[in-house]
Amino acid sequence: METKALVVFSGGQDSTTCLYWALRKFTHVETITFDYGQRHVIELDAVKKITDLAKVSSLVLKESALSQLGGNSLTTDMPIAESQNGALPNTFVPGRNIIFLTLASAYAYQRGISNLVTGVCQTDYSGYPDCRRDTIDSLERTLTLGMDREFKIHTPLMWLTKAQTVDLAVEVGALEALAYSHTCYNGALPPCGECPACILRAKGFSEAKVADPLIERCRKEFR
Amino acid sequence: METKALVVFSGGQDSTTCLYWALRKFTHVETITFDYGQRHVIELDAVKKITDLAKVSSLVLKESALSQLGGNSLTTDMPIAESQNGALPNTFVPGRNIIFLTLASAYAYQRGISNLVTGVCQTDYSGYPDCRRDTIDSLERTLTLGMDREFKIHTPLMWLTKAQTVDLAVEVGALEALAYSHTCYNGALPPCGECPACILRAKGFSEAKVADPLIERCRKEFR
Repeated sequence: METKALVVFSGGQDSTTCLYWALRKFTHVETITFDYGQRHVIELDAVKKITDLAKVSSLVLKESALSQLGGNSLTTDMPIAESQNGALPNTFVPGRNIIFLTLASAYAYQRGISNLVTGVCQTDYSGYPDCRRDTIDSLERTLTLGMDREFKIHTPLMWLTKAQTVDLAVEVGALEALAYSHTCYNGALPPCGECPACILRAKGFSEAKVADPLIERCRKEFR
Repeated sequence: METKALVVFSGGQDSTTCLYWALRKFTHVETITFDYGQRHVIELDAVKKITDLAKVSSLVLKESALSQLGGNSLTTDMPIAESQNGALPNTFVPGRNIIFLTLASAYAYQRGISNLVTGVCQTDYSGYPDCRRDTIDSLERTLTLGMDREFKIHTPLMWLTKAQTVDLAVEVGALEALAYSHTCYNGALPPCGECPACILRAKGFSEAKVADPLIERCRKEFR
């Protein structure tokens, strides 16, 4: 029986792992990517390279509203800052995952797809409340009610540590693609190695005792 | 005590009524409007005129993703068609209200506003599942969880007939502004009088035994 899934795909480590996870679990997989004025537009190169490699169709959707709202450091010139005193970090783009999953479901609706896959993760998350499973559960219900279509939002990384996510990437055969995945908040290639996203990625690979194929690749290409 | 609300404002009859309802209920009211490539961009003129009249601040946000998804008759060249055989009409833009309310809540989050107001209505609705109160309840919970902020989505028209909405407009003093509100699906001024939206509007005014100030105004301006 054909089973179809749409992966919300950023070209990053987590969504690349999710894409390969989905390729094992579903018979037909597509991806959707949001070009929302993020600083790291370099992500879009990663998207092209990885979806080519995985031979899946890729829709890149321009999303203009989030960057107009501003107020965060991912779509503006604001310097990246970590959370202070328990407040959310300024990389929090309010509503972002809800918007992305809703737009993804609107596209999935037209494509006859009921399974959505997203790499959000509650374990290592930066405090973003829209990455929590209770938010996702509630959104799944909202989308199902709001479109009269039974949507299922899969979050294969939800309860994994970064090291376990690396283990999963190995298991589902995502390692080759991860050489082209993008993580750095500063949009640098080779990655800056200093931003919270780079540090988290390095920690995961280190704990899993796996060499990061992106670092290996950069070592060869940029020496 | 100051109470703040953000009205999702299209410049149409229902959201104009909601705006004036909100002005009676809250001490501070703002509006947000989505320019999403709808055919009836004439709505945006109505927005300017009515927010000026009501002396409320107005944010018009470009929303580029919905029109790229297509598949409906409001953002494409597809002819407007009514529902057939119980299917949704092709004016249904999947996810639209969820997207708009989520973007509104993201803006409200930054403005320190917790009350959202929308003119969706379950009584006279065209079968759009995202206009039902159960969808709105679920979304309210999703937004509250996803942003760690207690949002309340007010739907003052939810259970009213179109005639009762006209009565409410009279009660909250929205009639003058309604002369500038836009309803026609075909984006015509004077309104075409033949599309489902025009017919629904005319029916409401007729049943409420109130003259539609828009028709009165057009009679003077376009004779």
